[in-house]
Amino acid sequence: MDQAPSQIRPLRADARENRDRILAVAGRLFTERGLDVPMAAIARHAGIGVATLYRRFPTREELVAAVFADQFHACASLVDDALADPDPWHGFRTFLEAVAGLQASDPGFSAAFLSSVPAAAPAEQDRERALRGFAELTARAQAAGGLRPDFVPDDLAIFLLAACGAAATPPEVAGPATRRLVGYLLAGLSADATGPLPPPAPLALRDLIH
Amino acid sequence: MDQAPSQIRPLRADARENRDRILAVAGRLFTERGLDVPMAAIARHAGIGVATLYRRFPTREELVAAVFADQFHACASLVDDALADPDPWHGFRTFLEAVAGLQASDPGFSAAFLSSVPAAAPAEQDRERALRGFAELTARAQAAGGLRPDFVPDDLAIFLLAACGAAATPPEVAGPATRRLVGYLLAGLSADATGPLPPPAPLALRDLIH
Repeated sequence: MDQAPSQIRPLRADARENRDRILAVAGRLFTERGLDVPMAAIARHAGIGVATLYRRFPTREELVAAVFADQFHACASLVDDALADPDPWHGFRTFLEAVAGLQASDPGFSAAFLSSVPAAAPAEQDRERALRGFAELTARAQAAGGLRPDFVPDDLAIFLLAACGAAATPPEVAGPATRRLVGYLLAGLSADATGPLPPPAPLALRDLIH
Repeated sequence: MDQAPSQIRPLRADARENRDRILAVAGRLFTERGLDVPMAAIARHAGIGVATLYRRFPTREELVAAVFADQFHACASLVDDALADPDPWHGFRTFLEAVAGLQASDPGFSAAFLSSVPAAAPAEQDRERALRGFAELTARAQAAGGLRPDFVPDDLAIFLLAACGAAATPPEVAGPATRRLVGYLLAGLSADATGPLPPPAPLALRDLIH
């Protein structure tokens, strides 16, 4: 009986690792080939049998939902991290860099936002927490005098789309290109930045992560 | 004989209009459905017969090349316009706004840049003129003290990709979203902008329009 935990733990770690690998592979293939990529192709790329894949995710819809929920949850956690930063403008900048970093390193992450598939809707709770949190982060960064006052939270939708464009490059380019883009955006977001902005676009952040 | 010019002119205008419509429709369909969209679908959307389409463009490759050459030529002309501006930083800003405007209003325009189809290569002459012209515009805008000194011409490749992302939205959103994005980028491009930039990405403008 003393050995039980050490016997079980590796199995649990394996299972978790398996699940993570399936979600990572599925996310990549959904992006590259669309959401109708065959389950058999996902299993093959993940190095598991089709039966194993179906045992974990009985339907394609459940797999899509799991991929997107996972990615959205990671994003919502970044908002929490930013809010915990004692310097809100530093927290805001770190958040934008981190989200763009996720987009550059994981193409499935962008797909989660841009998909119009109902299954992709994040858990209502995660979504409201992220939206409220980002609005709060914006207000604090503006109050601290770091973020320009005419930034509106919905502008994040435009930045996510823009970073998505820069991230749609070969892997060795996506990271540096996205970082350089965010560098320019952050310089333009500073309260010190000069020049008026065109009006906000009719694009709600809420609609992007519907 | 006196009437000949007026009889010919309307025909010529019609023919030109027809060609422009075919190229516009083809550009849109190439973007929406890929470069293998049936020639019959292009003819139908352009409101002409398939025979007429084939008479003008005997092969799909010739049609693709014409669409992209047309769009690239428009872009190269924008560089010339910017170089003619007595205020180079104003010329630079106007150029960036105009290119992003083309991307927002004509999805085929982005496809021309981002396509990896050999037929999409712009005329060597147009390409060299645009690349040399933009490098010259950059140098002048920096010398005038408007554009930040650490901007490199290859950064335009990142901006084109970013605008492409913002333009991949419904038509009523694409314009305002792209303008707002360019507004932030221009604020970040100003020589007054604060904060260092991450290093340039390994992405050459020359390779984007190969």
